[in-house]
Amino acid sequence: MNKSVIRFVLGYVIGFLGLFLLLPVLVAFIYHESEWMEYAIVAFPCLIIGVINSNLRPKRFAFYLKEGFFCTGASWVALSAIGALPLYLTGEIPTYIDALFEAVSGFTTTGASVIDNVELLSHASLFWRSFTHLIGGMGVLVFLLTVIPLAGGDGTQFNLMKAESPGPSVGKLVPKLKNTAQMLYIIYLGLCGLEIVFLLIAGMSPFEAINTACATAGTGGFGIYADSCADFNVACQWIIATFMFIFGVNFNFYYYILFHHAKDAFKMEEVRMYALLTVASVGIITINTLSSSAGLFDALTKAAFQVTSVQSSTGFSTTDFALWPQASRCVLVILMFIGACAGSTGGGIKVSRFILMGKAVHKELISYIHPRSVRKTMMDGKPVDHDTIRSNNVFFGTFMIIFFISTFCLSFENLDFSTVFTAVIATMSNIGPGLSKVGPALNFGFFNNFSKIILIIDMLAGRLELFPILMLFHPTIWKELATSHHVPKLKNAGKCWNEQSKMKKF
Amino acid sequence: MNKSVIRFVLGYVIGFLGLFLLLPVLVAFIYHESEWMEYAIVAFPCLIIGVINSNLRPKRFAFYLKEGFFCTGASWVALSAIGALPLYLTGEIPTYIDALFEAVSGFTTTGASVIDNVELLSHASLFWRSFTHLIGGMGVLVFLLTVIPLAGGDGTQFNLMKAESPGPSVGKLVPKLKNTAQMLYIIYLGLCGLEIVFLLIAGMSPFEAINTACATAGTGGFGIYADSCADFNVACQWIIATFMFIFGVNFNFYYYILFHHAKDAFKMEEVRMYALLTVASVGIITINTLSSSAGLFDALTKAAFQVTSVQSSTGFSTTDFALWPQASRCVLVILMFIGACAGSTGGGIKVSRFILMGKAVHKELISYIHPRSVRKTMMDGKPVDHDTIRSNNVFFGTFMIIFFISTFCLSFENLDFSTVFTAVIATMSNIGPGLSKVGPALNFGFFNNFSKIILIIDMLAGRLELFPILMLFHPTIWKELATSHHVPKLKNAGKCWNEQSKMKKF
Repeated sequence: MNKSVIRFVLGYVIGFLGLFLLLPVLVAFIYHESEWMEYAIVAFPCLIIGVINSNLRPKRFAFYLKEGFFCTGASWVALSAIGALPLYLTGEIPTYIDALFEAVSGFTTTGASVIDNVELLSHASLFWRSFTHLIGGMGVLVFLLTVIPLAGGDGTQFNLMKAESPGPSVGKLVPKLKNTAQMLYIIYLGLCGLEIVFLLIAGMSPFEAINTACATAGTGGFGIYADSCADFNVACQWIIATFMFIFGVNFNFYYYILFHHAKDAFKMEEVRMYALLTVASVGIITINTLSSSAGLFDALTKAAFQVTSVQSSTGFSTTDFALWPQASRCVLVILMFIGACAGSTGGGIKVSRFILMGKAVHKELISYIHPRSVRKTMMDGKPVDHDTIRSNNVFFGTFMIIFFISTFCLSFENLDFSTVFTAVIATMSNIGPGLSKVGPALNFGFFNNFSKIILIIDMLAGRLELFPILMLFHPTIWKELATSHHVPKLKNAGKCWNEQSKMKKF
Repeated sequence: MNKSVIRFVLGYVIGFLGLFLLLPVLVAFIYHESEWMEYAIVAFPCLIIGVINSNLRPKRFAFYLKEGFFCTGASWVALSAIGALPLYLTGEIPTYIDALFEAVSGFTTTGASVIDNVELLSHASLFWRSFTHLIGGMGVLVFLLTVIPLAGGDGTQFNLMKAESPGPSVGKLVPKLKNTAQMLYIIYLGLCGLEIVFLLIAGMSPFEAINTACATAGTGGFGIYADSCADFNVACQWIIATFMFIFGVNFNFYYYILFHHAKDAFKMEEVRMYALLTVASVGIITINTLSSSAGLFDALTKAAFQVTSVQSSTGFSTTDFALWPQASRCVLVILMFIGACAGSTGGGIKVSRFILMGKAVHKELISYIHPRSVRKTMMDGKPVDHDTIRSNNVFFGTFMIIFFISTFCLSFENLDFSTVFTAVIATMSNIGPGLSKVGPALNFGFFNNFSKIILIIDMLAGRLELFPILMLFHPTIWKELATSHHVPKLKNAGKCWNEQSKMKKF
């Protein structure tokens, strides 16, 4: 393990966190709140670490997938642990473990809260909660790639990006990875800005619009009102629903639309399936909830809002869907597992993984009918390589195993089945609210500390797609960290290059 | 498709079903019941079909995996459809769909019932329900292999056996497959006989002992009393629990013990994991239910009975575990998914599939740490080939997809989450009782016909491990059935041989 590179990247992450923490300081000043102090107290040591770190460049940048994964896992743990401090220090969240839960929920864009009434929070803390969604949505390491001078070429950068970017494979939009990361952030912030404008026009205050847009962009779901989005007018609700859908779409789609051929964009199987699932789910739920709604338009508005919210893994709500009929709730639970597109800011297992799995199932069936037929699995007209398919299949099993273990750990609280089950999936898929006692009208505050730690791990595992977090628990990594004091030798540099060439397949 | 071979096998299945149906006729005579007539009415046409069929041998026996899978799927549908008739004709189950549900539940060794009070049934029907478990447990096609003269060699026979035998790969115990099938049946019936003897010694009546042993051997779970096994004495309960555990073990274990080296038997990873899971689950549940039990021994007895019952997918009960604390219920639900060993008569995803998946997850993790390391996945000291691993991974995804679709279909009944969820897993894993409204004290009778059909498909899909049933829904198969009128040519015989040689890898 190249420890100096890990230290270098982690130092940058902490430095930038210090910069980000200055924003709530500013918000506190604007609203004449005393909470600026706690945010500043945490921000300055971070900034100092960042400045010192940037002057201690590592000698070699050789950087493998394991360092990338470890860096990512460690960065997110550090972000959450430090980002939780101001919430705890202001006393707005009385225990550190609750503050950590809230921060992890923010950075992982889950949006599950432990706070009974968010309306009692300061503007600074409300903004900080929403802003963590914005940072976590596209990813802090992807952000790092856009700004810091990381030597080592695309190979190094790719190893950082792979761990943080959701989906079965990472694609480069443009030849240089740094430019890809910049492009992603431009689209991301552009769309976020656009949402702010629309929400302002529809009648929101600037504070409401900025917070809501940050939480939508990251598909997070922290609201600034106790009843989430129920009090916003219908125009605002439709705008939010539309943007929740938009942020759940694979960002390659927007790249194609903007710089490439729009035809390729609309041919993307994943986006088509995502849209189809949305329309079908909205249709089913509208019909299913019609009798208990104030007319067709009301049913449609609520269904569209809730479907886009759950499928994009945002978690906003305009109604208590835990009280919906079972068929509608079941559709939502299934959408919780499926989630958004790969390469979006949304969570869940991802639509493309289900498409690939569907193709694998069909191929398996065909292999029984025609054992000697050799068929390549295709996606968007291109063959999918074996490694991607294998990883994809293994992902389902891993997800299931972590899901079972978490459910088991939570079951000692003696809650009902539906609460435990949906609490785990709502955190693993980074959605936020579940059903029963973790429904949209309630919160996660009643869990004991052990359960909260399990759910924190689930949120991180879900956001980073399992393996970077699992790796933190693997003894080999810690053994290597403890023993390897040398910088990688030339022999290893070859391996690094090998990783680079492997990357080009994507 | 070689239609004449399919016809030949199906004819034999129906013929043997006719023979089996003579047993309840005998039981009805013993107890002076009038129901002998309905059983006889169904038995005779089956016997006639069987006799005519056995004289119409197909010209060629070329037989591929697709024919094997199709035959298996079709045989099980035929068995259930015909086996349901006497239950309907006697009027003991008033609608045919309910009778079909009961028969499928019997043959697939699920044990989920639609009958409110089984104590009102005739002895003939009680015996028939239990006996369907015995037929379905080891498999009717495996039985066929032991008795009928099937030309075409091991290749043909293997293709029949593969579809019906549970687990990620089919092993041959002895060089000839026919002898393997015979060996399996000898062990199966031997153990069943042993249980009858033990139960008689412990104080059961012969009718109770035979029925209970049949239902245990097939890991079915149909009881002859309304409260399942709660009224049997403690000795009987421990005997049943022990045999439920025994029938959930991979039968290779017994073969090794009897004819081979006992050392190999105890080295089997799957059996060790199965035993470990049982012990751990019994321990957790005993502690968790201690406060609500009449002492440690009572808690241990109930825990041991319920764990072995659910893990082996039998479904007997001595207590209403739906009323247990959440942690115990959660352990049971997880065991419902895991199930028994491959190569046993039990259901579920199977312990060995989880072991293989665990190894795949670990390998995936290692591939991120050491991308160039090449490691063979090993099981019981032998390398596992790629096809088996791929099939195993795909199995998890397929299971999940069918699970979601079924849950969605059932959710229109507007039942609680826990009922729908556990009804689906209890049928897919061939267990029987679930939680809430399908708990051990209740039954499946209240579902509407649509839901019952979904659950029937789930039971069949679960017993035949998904693909033979999925294949029945694949258009290619029906197209081939409709068009190919010729018997396979020599060119195809080569392919058949190829299948044979492929088999030898297992």
